[in-house]
Amino acid sequence: MRDLGEFALIARINAGREQGPAVQLGPGDDAAVLAAVRGRYVVSTDMLIEDRHFRLDWSGPADIGRKAIAQNAADIYAMGAEPVGYVVGLGVPERTPVDFVTAFADGLWSEAARAGGSIAGGDIVRSPHLVISVTAFGDPLGEQPVTRSGARAGGILAIAGRPGRSAAGYAVLAGGHSMESYPGADTAVAAHRAPRPPYDLVRTAMAGDHPPVALTDISDGLLADLGHLSESSGVAIDVRSAVLRDTALEELAGSLEADARQWILTGGEDHVFAGVWPPGSVPPPGWTVIGGIEAGRGVTVDGVRYSGPQGWEAFSGTDSAKPDHSR
Amino acid sequence: MRDLGEFALIARINAGREQGPAVQLGPGDDAAVLAAVRGRYVVSTDMLIEDRHFRLDWSGPADIGRKAIAQNAADIYAMGAEPVGYVVGLGVPERTPVDFVTAFADGLWSEAARAGGSIAGGDIVRSPHLVISVTAFGDPLGEQPVTRSGARAGGILAIAGRPGRSAAGYAVLAGGHSMESYPGADTAVAAHRAPRPPYDLVRTAMAGDHPPVALTDISDGLLADLGHLSESSGVAIDVRSAVLRDTALEELAGSLEADARQWILTGGEDHVFAGVWPPGSVPPPGWTVIGGIEAGRGVTVDGVRYSGPQGWEAFSGTDSAKPDHSR
Repeated sequence: MRDLGEFALIARINAGREQGPAVQLGPGDDAAVLAAVRGRYVVSTDMLIEDRHFRLDWSGPADIGRKAIAQNAADIYAMGAEPVGYVVGLGVPERTPVDFVTAFADGLWSEAARAGGSIAGGDIVRSPHLVISVTAFGDPLGEQPVTRSGARAGGILAIAGRPGRSAAGYAVLAGGHSMESYPGADTAVAAHRAPRPPYDLVRTAMAGDHPPVALTDISDGLLADLGHLSESSGVAIDVRSAVLRDTALEELAGSLEADARQWILTGGEDHVFAGVWPPGSVPPPGWTVIGGIEAGRGVTVDGVRYSGPQGWEAFSGTDSAKPDHSR
Repeated sequence: MRDLGEFALIARINAGREQGPAVQLGPGDDAAVLAAVRGRYVVSTDMLIEDRHFRLDWSGPADIGRKAIAQNAADIYAMGAEPVGYVVGLGVPERTPVDFVTAFADGLWSEAARAGGSIAGGDIVRSPHLVISVTAFGDPLGEQPVTRSGARAGGILAIAGRPGRSAAGYAVLAGGHSMESYPGADTAVAAHRAPRPPYDLVRTAMAGDHPPVALTDISDGLLADLGHLSESSGVAIDVRSAVLRDTALEELAGSLEADARQWILTGGEDHVFAGVWPPGSVPPPGWTVIGGIEAGRGVTVDGVRYSGPQGWEAFSGTDSAKPDHSR
């Protein structure tokens, strides 16, 4: 890294990249310039810390780049919007090989190609640990962004994507299990290394005659994030667990003596989407109805408050089911 | 930190804060929503790493917060734009007192009040070192953003603000000098802890009949950043050093056996602004003409290429005059 220098490295990372149509001015000036076709834009930011949000012995640089974009792009889609650009802050130890950084950038660009938008700028600094900060920008797909606060009693709760795979992959990696031994382990581990949020299903939902009235992505855990939605909307949510059963995860959990139900209900990081539709409407194909909205507060599973850990909170060691990668 | 938890901490940081008029949806959902009154927005991001960009024994949490906003706000103004919002990623060690984080947030908000815009969202994570990532968003003050590439031969180069104070402050701190002993040391140290970019002078310049045709902020060092402007515009720049002389810095440099000229020419982090005006025009009051634009390439001082270090590059150890805070 030291041999190449900051400006040469930035030039190498940006070489041959094509900016998206919303980027009016890309890297190379004091700031980037983006178009806001609807007169407003949606913004989300996430920070990833080495050994906390990823481990270099578990994930390659391209995985880490894909994950960093995916979790921010998912936040943009979770507002009923589509990403048009990203800026990326990268703190890297001086000993980091240049190839690591270019592979990381390839991962960023590869997931941006799936999600929409391009890397419009960034900052590279020296750091004792690898640190990544992504900020994503998006255009609303409808007239208004879709928040967490639009759910009303009688509404229909549906999800796009299957939760629990990332948590299962973490269990495989943390247990030091050989992936060859367990069917489904490779899929789970891949999901943990870099989620693949079903962005297209949000597009489908927003393009329909009856778009969702509330939307969120599941990053802290299904029950935890439904808890946030319940609180923002001032409603109760009941989840029907039978619909969430996943035989592949149950088989893997059986082999690992783990609990597939807990992976599904409390594992985050898959970045599946949860949406609420008005009473009487039918969520579009690809969305699975998993419960309903009721008067009241809080989240129940099959009518009963779930007694296990709920999900992820950054400084709480006790009620977290999310992987802590610290060694 | 562990006692309070992420969500309670975020609630405490955001309590009583008032969002700016451009923020249509602030913290608490999957993403924030901002208005783009001109149909486009300007975006800049910077990452600050503990012991690299600041030292906890030199700067308090409020200083660090102010600096983090100032350097990003300066990038927005350096595009001829004004900040309307910021998102802040914060990585903190678990042992960090909650009061440190709230004082840091106060620093963010205090500088945002000077610069314009409000903290519209963020992310708090656990990290072995303190890491801050700010992304700033702005509205162009004119029809078009002002880039680094608009300078043409015959143009007039002027700066707003006085460069070299932050570098001088670093010299005081790094030398372990007692601030009482040297006149001007306290001013320089304050400038190093948290720069105060002259945002208002960019507003004045953009509001005039003849706004600048090129603009940048000085973050890597005066000569280094003029080098970027020269390269982007495809012009040569000559700086007249006599105009840049600063008796306060010369006196301090004399006491410390340092070189005020080097602080001024190569010290970054003051976030003064450099602008180029068309031939024959007069930069507005508060702007000091320091040189001119010529045909050719590169930057000269009084007609001669400067032979000392030029400025700051993140992974280059040899040609840097910027403080490296590593111990």
